[in-house]
Amino acid sequence: MGRPDAPDQGQFDEVLLLECNLDDMTGEALGFAIEEILAAGALDAWFTPIYMKKNRPGVLLSVLCRPDDGSRLRALLLRETTTLGVRWTPWRREVAERKTDRVHTQWGVVRRKLKILAGRVVSVKPEYEDCARLARQHQVPLEIVVEAARVAVGGEIRG
Amino acid sequence: MGRPDAPDQGQFDEVLLLECNLDDMTGEALGFAIEEILAAGALDAWFTPIYMKKNRPGVLLSVLCRPDDGSRLRALLLRETTTLGVRWTPWRREVAERKTDRVHTQWGVVRRKLKILAGRVVSVKPEYEDCARLARQHQVPLEIVVEAARVAVGGEIRG
Amino acid sequence: MGRPDAPDQGQFDEVLLLECNLDDMTGEALGFAIEEILAAGALDAWFTPIYMKKNRPGVLLSVLCRPDDGSRLRALLLRETTTLGVRWTPWRREVAERKTDRVHTQWGVVRRKLKILAGRVVSVKPEYEDCARLARQHQVPLEIVVEAARVAVGGEIRG
Amino acid sequence: MGRPDAPDQGQFDEVLLLECNLDDMTGEALGFAIEEILAAGALDAWFTPIYMKKNRPGVLLSVLCRPDDGSRLRALLLRETTTLGVRWTPWRREVAERKTDRVHTQWGVVRRKLKILAGRVVSVKPEYEDCARLARQHQVPLEIVVEAARVAVGGEIRG
Amino acid sequence: MGRPDAPDQGQFDEVLLLECNLDDMTGEALGFAIEEILAAGALDAWFTPIYMKKNRPGVLLSVLCRPDDGSRLRALLLRETTTLGVRWTPWRREVAERKTDRVHTQWGVVRRKLKILAGRVVSVKPEYEDCARLARQHQVPLEIVVEAARVAVGGEIRG
Amino acid sequence: MGRPDAPDQGQFDEVLLLECNLDDMTGEALGFAIEEILAAGALDAWFTPIYMKKNRPGVLLSVLCRPDDGSRLRALLLRETTTLGVRWTPWRREVAERKTDRVHTQWGVVRRKLKILAGRVVSVKPEYEDCARLARQHQVPLEIVVEAARVAVGGEIRG
Repeated sequence: MGRPDAPDQGQFDEVLLLECNLDDMTGEALGFAIEEILAAGALDAWFTPIYMKKNRPGVLLSVLCRPDDGSRLRALLLRETTTLGVRWTPWRREVAERKTDRVHTQWGVVRRKLKILAGRVVSVKPEYEDCARLARQHQVPLEIVVEAARVAVGGEIRG
Repeated sequence: MGRPDAPDQGQFDEVLLLECNLDDMTGEALGFAIEEILAAGALDAWFTPIYMKKNRPGVLLSVLCRPDDGSRLRALLLRETTTLGVRWTPWRREVAERKTDRVHTQWGVVRRKLKILAGRVVSVKPEYEDCARLARQHQVPLEIVVEAARVAVGGEIRG
Repeated sequence: MGRPDAPDQGQFDEVLLLECNLDDMTGEALGFAIEEILAAGALDAWFTPIYMKKNRPGVLLSVLCRPDDGSRLRALLLRETTTLGVRWTPWRREVAERKTDRVHTQWGVVRRKLKILAGRVVSVKPEYEDCARLARQHQVPLEIVVEAARVAVGGEIRG
Repeated sequence: MGRPDAPDQGQFDEVLLLECNLDDMTGEALGFAIEEILAAGALDAWFTPIYMKKNRPGVLLSVLCRPDDGSRLRALLLRETTTLGVRWTPWRREVAERKTDRVHTQWGVVRRKLKILAGRVVSVKPEYEDCARLARQHQVPLEIVVEAARVAVGGEIRG
Repeated sequence: MGRPDAPDQGQFDEVLLLECNLDDMTGEALGFAIEEILAAGALDAWFTPIYMKKNRPGVLLSVLCRPDDGSRLRALLLRETTTLGVRWTPWRREVAERKTDRVHTQWGVVRRKLKILAGRVVSVKPEYEDCARLARQHQVPLEIVVEAARVAVGGEIRG
Repeated sequence: MGRPDAPDQGQFDEVLLLECNLDDMTGEALGFAIEEILAAGALDAWFTPIYMKKNRPGVLLSVLCRPDDGSRLRALLLRETTTLGVRWTPWRREVAERKTDRVHTQWGVVRRKLKILAGRVVSVKPEYEDCARLARQHQVPLEIVVEAARVAVGGEIRG
């Protein structure tokens, strides 16, 4: 890696990581619970398959949230899952600057996310939801819509 | 999630999370090690399958313990696994209040765990070990014993 | 791979692979079910974590058995799990010849499995159960017992 | 397992298992593809995380379908994923008889699936979609709705 | 899926899937074994993390090969892994037609794989090895090289 | 665990754990990225398969590094992956003392890592790279080279 060392390129904030291990909920109930958690304002939530004692396949439920939402989301986890305890720890985070724009493709409008580091746009990412909707409507493979949106000339940028 | 925001509903304590990555132990040896760790007083211990360098399937060993047990369990991990280093970090934890009771089913006695939030019993969970033993003895599907224990009228509660 | 091509080195038989996908059992219940399946005479049984529809973490339950046990084990799966269907397919298998022997270590007797290909012992594997029992009794790290048993001079061999 | 051996308890059919390994699609694109596959009439579809060459985390995409849908779904996989080849193999399947009924709970109607082996109802399973909808509408924990539906006295049964 | 049903779009062949479950090899040894297997002419080889009996994290080793290579690769698996048995089953396969071409980017030449269904090029995929080498040499993010190669005007096509 | 409690046996330092969730990179690109990260001086880096929202199989990328390398590696993650944010948290670490030696086997020289706790060598581990190279050169199963190196009488020790 001969690349020159870089100064901090993003902005900094703090997030909480909430976790609990679950071996007494079904996959169905877990699928429901994670939708509730995302709807309640978590920044992200995901499952990791783990091997728990007594030969039990379990999952680790992880929730990332803003510090102010910690208490409310812990209460939600205690109520909506079978866990008897929710643990959490703060993490620092370096975040790229984001802007959005909108471009026209032959099938319709697609929003895009621009990733900005040190003031420069380093990547352009079409919103999958928009591309997926157009791909379904027009019976076009998703990748073709995504590709068209990626190379389209950008419209107005929003902060 | 239109539900009203909740005050803290559990009690708080602190736990340590100990971790090490392992790519030079066999599954057999790992199964033995985790039993040792649980027997030594860890609150919980589990494996997560991970992808390590050089195309190696590895496991992340995670151990949750009380702060006072950290030094002893780190020593155990260094001795009973091949790892050259054990890392750890403290987590805060919100824990539901627990009580236990015992109920009679037609196949025998089953202990149950009561989960209590804000002073109210929010769930009742029969002990799997008890149910499993009775299911084996009486050749009944496990779910039927669990269900019977869940709906049984509770006996004396213990703190 | 400059190694010369090898003739068939093992013996051949046929096994059945039974499978079902499960997203409506808990980890606890799955841990119980797999013990029942192994106790019922399956050659092997294991879980694979899978991602099922509607964001559900599920498991694939796989059971390997002798052709004659297929009907009985399918009935067991239908009764002891929540699945509505068990699928199966036959596999051919090439199996190394196995013998066992017993060796004396300073902590006690350990059985070993000998793997034989084309008439030659190609590996010697101490039984983990024996080593684990001795390691616990004598408070010795497991690896030391395993290593001692591996290099011990063999006793009488059994077919 | 002292249980007496059981005669075949279900009905038999044949299904196809289609599979391909993918290391050059994103998680986003995979999430889209599996919805297309399920919408196209697959009996089931799921991902298994696998470790592919060159340290690449990949996924195995598995699709279960009726024999008559094999050709159409293979074409879909070749078009909607990046794979260069789709492999498949037939499996036999033993399927429990299923009926459905509908029950009234205090929050609304819930459909249930009845699993029938050898002519006897062996389990009753409320539809998660129904329970989830009612739980969200009435702000009740999902498990309470599920439990109420499970123990409700059944209504008319449909084949 | 309103799309019209498609005729078979690829070519057909047969492959073998070889498998064994491993709970007594280390991740290091597995990483070595899979390189041997790939070097010996397997079409593909991969690991799946599985949960084996006695709380053992294991891996399922899967090898895809041409029917003529089955005997040789089974011998290799029996010799290079600890398994006592290798099972296998034949799969049918529908394969897209592939061609390759080479394009010039500002950093150097990149080979590409063309996927052809029903006589039409449906996707163009730059070789990662080529792109990775150029990205490292010229200190450019990999995605930029891949993208440039994808949209480059193609050179001579090879069957 | 009747074993006597142990005093701290290793040395202590601090490490950073950097993480990001990825659902919009391919396995190929991830395999490339982790090589870059390891080449850039990370102490370790690995992937964990996770289940992200909208049915997306994702990976959690984890990087362990020295505190002084945190800023540089965060910049690398922001540039070489698609993530919009990198989170990190400090961990304490207890590390066994390590020495290395070199031993002669009949196929050539192998380096070994000695793990030292409380001043005593508790395990000896041959370097896999050395053993793998010799195994390939001399067409010997890897395990035989490893075993020979493990039991060889040690040469000069280096700190």
